[in-house]
Parts: sequence; C-alpha cells; structure tokens
Amino acid sequence: MGFAAGAEIERLVELLAKLPGLGPRSARRAVLTLVRNREGLMDPLSTALEAVRTKVRPCRICGNLDTDETCAVCRDPRRDPALLCVVEQVADLWALERAGVFRGRYHVLGGVLSALDGIGPDELRIGALVDRAKTQGVGEVILALNATVEGQTTAHYIADRLREAGIRASGLAQGVPVGGELDYLDDGTLAAALGARRALD
Amino acid sequence: MGFAAGAEIERLVELLAKLPGLGPRSARRAVLTLVRNREGLMDPLSTALEAVRTKVRPCRICGNLDTDETCAVCRDPRRDPALLCVVEQVADLWALERAGVFRGRYHVLGGVLSALDGIGPDELRIGALVDRAKTQGVGEVILALNATVEGQTTAHYIADRLREAGIRASGLAQGVPVGGELDYLDDGTLAAALGARRALD
Ligand SMILES: [Zn+2]
Ligand SMILES: [Zn+2]
Repeated sequence: MGFAAGAEIERLVELLAKLPGLGPRSARRAVLTLVRNREGLMDPLSTALEAVRTKVRPCRICGNLDTDETCAVCRDPRRDPALLCVVEQVADLWALERAGVFRGRYHVLGGVLSALDGIGPDELRIGALVDRAKTQGVGEVILALNATVEGQTTAHYIADRLREAGIRASGLAQGVPVGGELDYLDDGTLAAALGARRALD
Repeated sequence: MGFAAGAEIERLVELLAKLPGLGPRSARRAVLTLVRNREGLMDPLSTALEAVRTKVRPCRICGNLDTDETCAVCRDPRRDPALLCVVEQVADLWALERAGVFRGRYHVLGGVLSALDGIGPDELRIGALVDRAKTQGVGEVILALNATVEGQTTAHYIADRLREAGIRASGLAQGVPVGGELDYLDDGTLAAALGARRALD
C-alpha cells in the first residue's frame, strides 16, 4: 500500500480490510484508534483474538462455536433434546439465541445446497443431521433456513430425507415482520402473508 | 451479550465492536469470518496485531507511527527538511503520502484547538513545532489542517506563532475538488472557489 506507516501497520491494515464491513479506509481508522488506545483497546483485543484463535472450535455435535468439544447449548440439560432447530450458519444460531425464543438444540448445516457453487448434500452436515435425529430421540426438526430460493430448496430436501426416516420437519412461518409496513414489503412477502392469513378471534 | 457463543467469542465481538465502522452485528460477522478462515486470516491477524502492539510507537520528531524512534519519512534523506507540512492526525499524513504529492517532512499536531473540549496550545504539539521550525532550518510551514472552523482557527493561531518566529506559513487552497460537480458542493466551498478564482491562460 505504501503510506509511510511501516510494514507492521500496513500488514495490519491489509488484514483488517479483509473483514466484512471494513475496507482499507476504515481499517486505517481502526488501526489509529487501536494505537491511540493501547491499554483500553489494543492490548485487550490482542489478548481476546489470541484466546479465540487458540481455544475456540466447532461443537462436535451441533457445529456451534465454543471452547469445549461440546458447546454450551449442547451441554445445557435444560435444553429440550427432542426439538432440533436447523440453521445455515452459526450467525443464525446466535440470532435465535439473542432473541431467546427457542429452548431446544441446534444443528448448523454450514451452508445451503447450491448447484452453481457445487455444494451438494455431502458438502453440508445433512447426513449427520439425519443420523442425529434418528438416534437421539428427536421428535421434531425445525428448518430455520433463510427465506431464499437456496434456503427453501435445502429445507425441502432435508424435510424429504427426514420424512423417509420417520421424523417430522417444520419450517418458519412467512409473513409480515413485526413492525413491518406493508408499503415497504416486497411482493413475495405480501403474497406469503396473504396466503397464510389467519382468523382473528 | 449472551448469544451462546462462549465468553472468549463474546469478548472479541465486544472489543471489535468498539472499532470505528464496526458495530455489534458487523463485529459478529467479522469473528465468524475469522473462525472460518484460520490460516488465511485469523492467525496472520493475531500476529500482525501483536507486532503493532509491541513494536509501533509515535516518531519522536514528527508524531507519525513507525517501529523506529524516528519514522521512515524523518529518516529519508531525500525528503526536504526545509519544508514542513502540519497535519491534525496521523491519518492525514497517510492520506498525503498515499497521494504521493509532498516531498518535505511532517509534523502531527494530534488534534485542533477546541475551547469546548478544553484543548489549548499546550495539549497539541505546537510548541514542539515552533521549536523544530526555528532550530532545524525550516523555510516554510504548510498548514494542511481540515477545512473546518476548528482546523482553520488552529491554522491561524499557528501561523501567528510562526510569524513571530520569522517563519513563513501557508495553507491549502480551497475550491472545487477535482471531479467535483458544482451542483453537489456546499455554499461555503462554492464561495471559496469563486473568491479564489484564477485567470485561465
Ligand atoms: Zn453444540
Ligand atoms: Zn517522523
């Protein structure tokens, strides 16, 4: 890059700029913020990054991230093992946990089926999901995949596989988001919300 | 935060979210990107951050950042020591270096005068600037401060101090940025560009 900042800083800027949401400009600002606040930010960030780097790994059961071989959700005896929520990515699991609305356990696929990207069932953790559902007393699998074409294709594929194994699968309801204004929704969402309309009692 | 990700990850998300340009959401995405790409991104980032943390410090002459006591610009014998460019922050120095348009040396103030924030001349590196200009054979000081009220107030204050010491000070020209469309410029810029109009020859 060459902006007279020394090789170490240029390397740090270059790497930070690869993070989603950061470009070269914001990476440079981030580095200056770090240098200006050593005790409060740079030192703890270095420590935290090193801790994640050396300790964090995917849970061998569900694919969530944790410092243990099995994650906090899988270890928690209060979580219902008969109810399994399938998500595409760890970020989706975190979103559901932040919402605090689900008391079962998870299964992270690691992506969605995509002929274009050459991602078939073997590239995802689908076999492990079916095995897990069959052998661990799972009564229902909720397919919480994104409401995209690939997400829904993947959900239907998995539902078929689970049905063959005698396990019930469900999907998230589609409709108007809470607080959503009709005027701002796309046609697909409006159509789904209308099709799934329910009686007001 | 509590999103079932383990204390190490939550700590890293929390710290990354403090960087300019990142919030909690993008910090979570950044951490997942790091975990997904250990060899390519997380390991080198940890190494680079540690290198900057332990090696980089402000240049004792100009305030730029480098791993040496004096920075690459101050060490470079091809840079004209008689021409000094004063900037508010290291980021401004980097911007000028990227542009590659200045062949003198720099002086980083570390901010601008601000009565509101309690920043007077003693909080900035103004005394050091005047000493440096007087004792190091500086012929001209270019005050490349931001075109804000505080920046220009600071520029005038420094120009006065330098004039007392018999040293010439100049400021950056104001006007229409290259490629700038008049329709999108603020009134102040238009007025400055008009006032500083020059003959076309
Ligand atoms: Zn787990
Ligand atoms: Zn220097």
